[in-house]
Amino acid sequence: MDHKNISFKPIGVLHTEFNEKANVPIQPIFSKSKGTVELFPEFVQGLKDLEGFSHIILIYYFHESKGFDLEVKPFLDDKKRGVFATRSPKRPNQIGMSIVELEKIKENILYIKGADIIDKTPLLDIKPYIKDFDLVKESKQGWIDGKVKKNHKSDDRF
Amino acid sequence: MDHKNISFKPIGVLHTEFNEKANVPIQPIFSKSKGTVELFPEFVQGLKDLEGFSHIILIYYFHESKGFDLEVKPFLDDKKRGVFATRSPKRPNQIGMSIVELEKIKENILYIKGADIIDKTPLLDIKPYIKDFDLVKESKQGWIDGKVKKNHKSDDRF
Repeated sequence: MDHKNISFKPIGVLHTEFNEKANVPIQPIFSKSKGTVELFPEFVQGLKDLEGFSHIILIYYFHESKGFDLEVKPFLDDKKRGVFATRSPKRPNQIGMSIVELEKIKENILYIKGADIIDKTPLLDIKPYIKDFDLVKESKQGWIDGKVKKNHKSDDRF
Repeated sequence: MDHKNISFKPIGVLHTEFNEKANVPIQPIFSKSKGTVELFPEFVQGLKDLEGFSHIILIYYFHESKGFDLEVKPFLDDKKRGVFATRSPKRPNQIGMSIVELEKIKENILYIKGADIIDKTPLLDIKPYIKDFDLVKESKQGWIDGKVKKNHKSDDRF
């Protein structure tokens, strides 16, 4: 196994009301904010059949985040945690993932609800949320259990 | 917004019993197969606190998949569907995502259950599965609804 670079190109860009790193809802469940996903027009044919899904998984690039730490203090805690046990953007590969509600699609624009993402974030992939694959009924959630309350917002720590 | 390349480096490699593209369980729910995630040793500190989570999200690179189609015939259907409405590996950015069960961690090796991934797949990220963020109770799943049965396996179409 080598450590060769793997290269991707953005397939679109996310538009939200959040212009800076602080005060962004830290996850879609804390956000009532609407936003749009602008898919570059050359990919629009790939959206066929997507509107039948109520939720989609957005994979994107944390473009505002530079460098990484192996231990981070997450928004929901005051202890340092291993970065892979958090959703911190300061990861070795700055890949973000959010599950959002899909309201409608007009040509190459997807209207979404539950945006927890900074404006102008480069989009890498869209996947359908498929409950038969993605819904885990029973799970344990380690350090974060009981810490998730309503209306969490980010600050500028990352 | 430019179309600039975004570059990542593998942080590890996935080891499973699946050596070829055909006959791989197409999603973790169809797989009882165990596998391991080898995280490169330089990142091991980032695993702190992860063992408290019963499920993890693996983000990886579909290294066996070349090129992409905007419409694909998915394993579960005989109609062509927009690629973003499927989990096909032949996507514009060949990023895969699987939610798997985490059994234990020994140093830099994660023991997982539910592997639906080809052996030697390069790993890009590990995230904790957090039900408070990732569990969508009510969702519609478009064309795939009712098509998911047990024991689906891939063939060599991609």
